[in-house]
Amino acid sequence: MSKDKVVREITDMDVDFSQWYTDIVKKAELIDYSNVRGCMILRPYGYAIWENIQNVVDKKFKETGHENVSMPMFIPESLLNKEKDHIEGFAPEVAWVTHGGNERLEERLCVRPTSEVLFCDHYSNIVESYKDLPKLYNQWCSVVRWEKTTRPFLRSLEFLWQEGHTIHATGEEALEETLRMLDIYGDFAENYLAIPVIKGRKTEKEKFAGAHSTYTIESLMHDGKALQAGTSHYFGDGFAKAFDIKFTDKDNTQKFVHQTSWGISTRIIGGMIMVHSDNNGLVMPPRIAPIQTIIIPIASHKEGVLEKANELKTKLIASDLRVKLDDTDKTPGWKFSEAEMKGIPVRVELGPRDIENGEAVLVRRDTREKITVKLDNIENEIKDLLETMHNDMFEKAKNHREERTYVAKNMEELTNIFKEKQGFVKGMWCESLECEEKIKDELGVSSRCMPFEQEKISDVCMCCGKPAEKMVVWAKAY
Amino acid sequence: MSKDKVVREITDMDVDFSQWYTDIVKKAELIDYSNVRGCMILRPYGYAIWENIQNVVDKKFKETGHENVSMPMFIPESLLNKEKDHIEGFAPEVAWVTHGGNERLEERLCVRPTSEVLFCDHYSNIVESYKDLPKLYNQWCSVVRWEKTTRPFLRSLEFLWQEGHTIHATGEEALEETLRMLDIYGDFAENYLAIPVIKGRKTEKEKFAGAHSTYTIESLMHDGKALQAGTSHYFGDGFAKAFDIKFTDKDNTQKFVHQTSWGISTRIIGGMIMVHSDNNGLVMPPRIAPIQTIIIPIASHKEGVLEKANELKTKLIASDLRVKLDDTDKTPGWKFSEAEMKGIPVRVELGPRDIENGEAVLVRRDTREKITVKLDNIENEIKDLLETMHNDMFEKAKNHREERTYVAKNMEELTNIFKEKQGFVKGMWCESLECEEKIKDELGVSSRCMPFEQEKISDVCMCCGKPAEKMVVWAKAY
Repeated sequence: MSKDKVVREITDMDVDFSQWYTDIVKKAELIDYSNVRGCMILRPYGYAIWENIQNVVDKKFKETGHENVSMPMFIPESLLNKEKDHIEGFAPEVAWVTHGGNERLEERLCVRPTSEVLFCDHYSNIVESYKDLPKLYNQWCSVVRWEKTTRPFLRSLEFLWQEGHTIHATGEEALEETLRMLDIYGDFAENYLAIPVIKGRKTEKEKFAGAHSTYTIESLMHDGKALQAGTSHYFGDGFAKAFDIKFTDKDNTQKFVHQTSWGISTRIIGGMIMVHSDNNGLVMPPRIAPIQTIIIPIASHKEGVLEKANELKTKLIASDLRVKLDDTDKTPGWKFSEAEMKGIPVRVELGPRDIENGEAVLVRRDTREKITVKLDNIENEIKDLLETMHNDMFEKAKNHREERTYVAKNMEELTNIFKEKQGFVKGMWCESLECEEKIKDELGVSSRCMPFEQEKISDVCMCCGKPAEKMVVWAKAY
Repeated sequence: MSKDKVVREITDMDVDFSQWYTDIVKKAELIDYSNVRGCMILRPYGYAIWENIQNVVDKKFKETGHENVSMPMFIPESLLNKEKDHIEGFAPEVAWVTHGGNERLEERLCVRPTSEVLFCDHYSNIVESYKDLPKLYNQWCSVVRWEKTTRPFLRSLEFLWQEGHTIHATGEEALEETLRMLDIYGDFAENYLAIPVIKGRKTEKEKFAGAHSTYTIESLMHDGKALQAGTSHYFGDGFAKAFDIKFTDKDNTQKFVHQTSWGISTRIIGGMIMVHSDNNGLVMPPRIAPIQTIIIPIASHKEGVLEKANELKTKLIASDLRVKLDDTDKTPGWKFSEAEMKGIPVRVELGPRDIENGEAVLVRRDTREKITVKLDNIENEIKDLLETMHNDMFEKAKNHREERTYVAKNMEELTNIFKEKQGFVKGMWCESLECEEKIKDELGVSSRCMPFEQEKISDVCMCCGKPAEKMVVWAKAY
């Protein structure tokens, strides 16, 4: 048996969620570990998911007027040091290049952990007039953060992402852009990955290093822990001042630009896995699945079966479905397991009797329900089924989140909730750093965001009892 | 005037070709210099060219069964050292990461100059049986080579590329793959970039570090210097032995795999510029141009002109053309210069009188020829014109290469040719390293390749006069 093809049992998610996750990413052939600590290899199936994410999101970016660019991967130390808050946030976790060839560099270079300073430096060179604004740039690349402990997709030394960096004539415009991009992320998570998200603003403590404010989409995993799935930052003119990005406005005065940045990464694939998958393997959201439907011939040695299966494949591809035909010499049962492990949304079983009856059997990956359909109309049946599955997966994830969302009015309630379970807890907060840190230190949970959709849980901060107007969502987070 | 928009004169290419090139890449807004020595910023227009190249080539890769993956950007020193010839070739020009955060690393990591060793290491983990073969992987990424002198696109510390790495059960199959990919590169260069290429094999001296043999597509620039536009390497089982990549074959014996790698980079954009562009700026090959046609309204303040221009834009986009409408308040003459600088293949001039007559004027970027066409059928006129331009540009480049291709029978002839001019020189070679090095040292030119299409220039080596059967093409190269 080939190493590449072995499907084995995976750890039960209710027994050891963390091991279950590791089993999935390996056995669904999404990743392999590399010889470099904390760096993963995205295998063809894993990378194909990222390519599909890129295609959808990049199209949205372009439709909203953004342009792609490519910046260097290195940042000279002096450039990184220009914005004080930014460097304080990132310095402890960057990789340093000190030698080129056999020579020691005069100034060391860090491998970009994020590229604000590179964009700022470039913008200061190319912007002069209000006519040059806005600049709406994005880049697809990898970045490096020297993490101590790593997990595939969720936290790795190097990861793939996109980082948008825009500059605008006014703060209002920049804030609008910040929220526009958060909406694009939210819509993408919900409409393509079937992951329900809470949109909101991060607290001062949790915001991005150097930002004026950070907005986030927060999602809840199957185990009740939270995952930050995308962030969008509003910078005001802080970086513009540090990097001297000025323009002559219509009124002929010099002004600083206002700035944003926003990003999603391969981390969201980790989220997708932990929201939908089960003890049989990955469950792929249909709209992003590299393979949406797999045809498995039954008794394929019998005359006409493989021919019909190939015919069906051609027909489904012509209907714009992403299709695979498994015509290897493995047993059907083995093929079923493999297809389940890879989370392929719809399996088509096609045997001699089905062909005789002009039928095929469709099996949904999420519910494992079987449906017999006519071959005549199978392409539309599959398309409808994929849509139904998307909606069902989204609803299921949303219900799971609702069931795991709690309310706390004081520290006792909060403590009791996290003693027994994991989930989102809504509570009022007085907006003091002291209370936020106390909760984090005592319970090991962090403020996920101040949701845009606020509720009034009570009049007072659940920590200090003083008057409070903000509702915060708390959770243990990945 | 905004910095972003200034169009100025560029250096005459016959006066100073090198400065002309630098002017073009800056003033057509393809790149900007960065604060990192030798690293360039690809601006939106430059990156859009790379995206179009990616789209075309990636589709070809996938049609021929290749899959994309993503490997780490770091290589531990011990891993890089595993293949002796490979490390000897690359060690002098790699960047070394020695610190992560505040800690010194136990083993330093190089930033990949190319990823053979990472792919080998991965393949040794995932391949067991002949059923796992072939593996046809590719990745799109950037690599770093610590060059002393750099030029945008042609030679930079960091550059974008794709690197294919495949493994096969037999050497024949691997060699077939090597040549298949060379054909894909050659077809791409000729059919999309309108760059005629010579296909051939590199000499032992010029082959890739660690390869059994290297194949290349060689092109000739406007100034008569050569550019290697893409390479494809056959490795035999050399790396497989160093990395222990074995499989159980059908006959139940353990065998080493046979391997290839192949790549093209943003360098090819430099070649495209130096083959086609002129003293008015960039000339974009139509099939790869980010903007294929630009609509410039004349007297756009007059009633109906902008409306008609917008209508035309919609119509052309619907015909799958890549279109821009310049509706800024600059003068038409200014807009013409900008469009010429950016090399946009077809300019559409549309004024009140044209509209009255149901016509528009098309201006070709390459010849500056004007053609009046009916608006009714303008989309087809433009499409036909783009095809004509592609063919004309290819023919022009091919004629230029033929005019600059010489023949030498001995060292005197060879010396005389390179004393006066630059170009390809064909001559016979005895296949000794001594003769190859002598020519390189004395004349500063290198062997570009042994073309697949051999000619018999004479019976003897042009250097030593001994019997010779191989024809080599020589040139000064970028």
